[in-house]
Amino acid sequence: MTRTIRLAVIGGDGIGPEVVAEALSVLTAAVGDEASIETTAFSLGAARYLATGDVLPDDELAAIAQHDAILLGAVGGTPGDPRLKDANIERGLLLKLRFALDHYVNLRPTVLWPGVESPLRDPGDVDFVVVREGTEGPYVGNGGALRVGTPAEIATEVSVNTAYGVERVVRYAFAKAGERRNRLTLVHKTNVLTFAGSLWKRTVDAVAAEFPDVAVDYLHVDAATIFLVTDPARFDVVVTDNLFGDILTDLAGAISGGIGLAASGNINPSGAFPSMFEPVHGSAPDIAGTGKADPTAAILSTALLLDHLGLPEAAGRVTAAVTADLAARSGAPRTTAETGAAVRA
Amino acid sequence: MTRTIRLAVIGGDGIGPEVVAEALSVLTAAVGDEASIETTAFSLGAARYLATGDVLPDDELAAIAQHDAILLGAVGGTPGDPRLKDANIERGLLLKLRFALDHYVNLRPTVLWPGVESPLRDPGDVDFVVVREGTEGPYVGNGGALRVGTPAEIATEVSVNTAYGVERVVRYAFAKAGERRNRLTLVHKTNVLTFAGSLWKRTVDAVAAEFPDVAVDYLHVDAATIFLVTDPARFDVVVTDNLFGDILTDLAGAISGGIGLAASGNINPSGAFPSMFEPVHGSAPDIAGTGKADPTAAILSTALLLDHLGLPEAAGRVTAAVTADLAARSGAPRTTAETGAAVRA
Ligand SMILES: CC(C)[C@H](C(=O)O)[C@@H](O)C(=O)O
Ligand SMILES: CC(C)[C@H](C(=O)O)[C@@H](O)C(=O)O
Repeated sequence: MTRTIRLAVIGGDGIGPEVVAEALSVLTAAVGDEASIETTAFSLGAARYLATGDVLPDDELAAIAQHDAILLGAVGGTPGDPRLKDANIERGLLLKLRFALDHYVNLRPTVLWPGVESPLRDPGDVDFVVVREGTEGPYVGNGGALRVGTPAEIATEVSVNTAYGVERVVRYAFAKAGERRNRLTLVHKTNVLTFAGSLWKRTVDAVAAEFPDVAVDYLHVDAATIFLVTDPARFDVVVTDNLFGDILTDLAGAISGGIGLAASGNINPSGAFPSMFEPVHGSAPDIAGTGKADPTAAILSTALLLDHLGLPEAAGRVTAAVTADLAARSGAPRTTAETGAAVRA
Repeated sequence: MTRTIRLAVIGGDGIGPEVVAEALSVLTAAVGDEASIETTAFSLGAARYLATGDVLPDDELAAIAQHDAILLGAVGGTPGDPRLKDANIERGLLLKLRFALDHYVNLRPTVLWPGVESPLRDPGDVDFVVVREGTEGPYVGNGGALRVGTPAEIATEVSVNTAYGVERVVRYAFAKAGERRNRLTLVHKTNVLTFAGSLWKRTVDAVAAEFPDVAVDYLHVDAATIFLVTDPARFDVVVTDNLFGDILTDLAGAISGGIGLAASGNINPSGAFPSMFEPVHGSAPDIAGTGKADPTAAILSTALLLDHLGLPEAAGRVTAAVTADLAARSGAPRTTAETGAAVRA
């Protein structure tokens, strides 16, 4: 009997639906007879909000949670659209999904694929993965404001970090390093953010004792950005908090040929909730509908999805096909569909 | 009668005293007859702490505050030195000075000088300045921890942002843009840090009305790191919070030839307290005493100092001498003293 994989698909806004369509078709081809794919489409994002006023209704969240995994394109309307001013699709939809489904590992691999040009003169052999914490830190929405709009306004943002939350993601990162080149770099700002920094540092030191083969080092976040442009090949696994991870992975995407190639997984390793896979890029409303969007990041996100669901061979086929396509690309502009077709072939 | 400039000099640790010595001698040469320089040396930093247990005694802070300006090299001991574990020289000395002396503008110019190689393939014409807020944000030390060392530990960090604090630095940044190419970019993370982000955004919008010639745009901090490697020439003045400014300016230093060239000023524009000028780099204990440290960042910091004290011609002489030296350098390694001598010449 063939296994059935039930996917919740959120195409989202802008180029989101376009890249998701290509990713789904590559995923289906890669899985072949190993499983059958059943998809449920959820129409969520800025367009839905503008049409109906809904961001993420509870019943839809509950329905999404019944699936084996989620494939998401990109959400977000045109920057500056006044009708979206108070919607905050990012907090109400994307972050809500990550928090509600306890995606405590935000996994973001960075590979400079053969044939891809880096903006760096001498990038070296770039192949690392950032394990970004996904449910804590400055992302918790735990701030406030007083006397808004007056000269006496004060606005705060609280970064919340718990031993529970830090330890589980650090443990995941060590295990990942053990499967790779046995190097783990903690990135934080312990000299300034002393309370949170101390918790992260002590946790890494404690978990390190269980992984004697993994070499550990530490970098302040500012120094980490320097190494990402001067010596990105030094990194294997980077573990860091939600905000630093956000910043470092966009930079990592940029040095490895653009976030058009950067895949990510929002993972709940326990399996209690479905994990969600999405390209790092946004909805790029300026090129939506033109066929110019590169679906590669979405396609690579399906490789992470297949890996997570225990289909490593199918995942390998996706990665191999993308690698071959990137190496073969002539540099001439291609359409979204052409790239999808090339990868499938 | 010649004007006397009273400088507090904090050489600090590692390469700090070495680069400060060269910077002071260049500064003296550049000032010539325009002013006489009186220096008071303060022995502060990790070495002082290890010798006496003092980080920044109140009477020394008061004495420093009596000067016209401060020149600082770098502070901080050997990373991982267990004797410094609980000292936190950064918070107790460097940040204490910035906060106590109300250095609300942390001014960090980035120029890719002719003759200097960028790690970027195609950097373009890089010449921008980051106006980093210096007295608020996540740097306020306003966090805490509960149940430390237990599985129930929670550690928080509070970013504090006030209309008072944001408006004054935003106003400074607009004025700076007006003296330059009339472009200002606000960098924040308004879609996630909604309370602080909203205050920053509304403040920039409000102050913009007073500077109709300045074109304003906005970037999320993650996107800003992308542009710093793909199109750094797009920036003129960047205004941002304390933590984002820390991260962006190290990255900016890296793409413009290394933080060995990056100067900074911690400025109190009101003049109520002396401003402090320092290279962005750290104390680099690994190369201390070898004569390998590049004093250029410290020397360029004296140009910012002279500008701040109303000696723009002398500042211009420093910058011109550094520019000439950078263009003439052969790429062969040079000693700290040789670079100082070359710039003086
Ligand atoms: C859209 C935004 C909320 C999101 C984040 O900050 O996490 C994005 O930048 C990302 O990295 O996935
Ligand atoms: C040493 C550290 C506290 C400091 C900072 O974070 O501000 C440094 O990185 C800087 O940028 O001047």
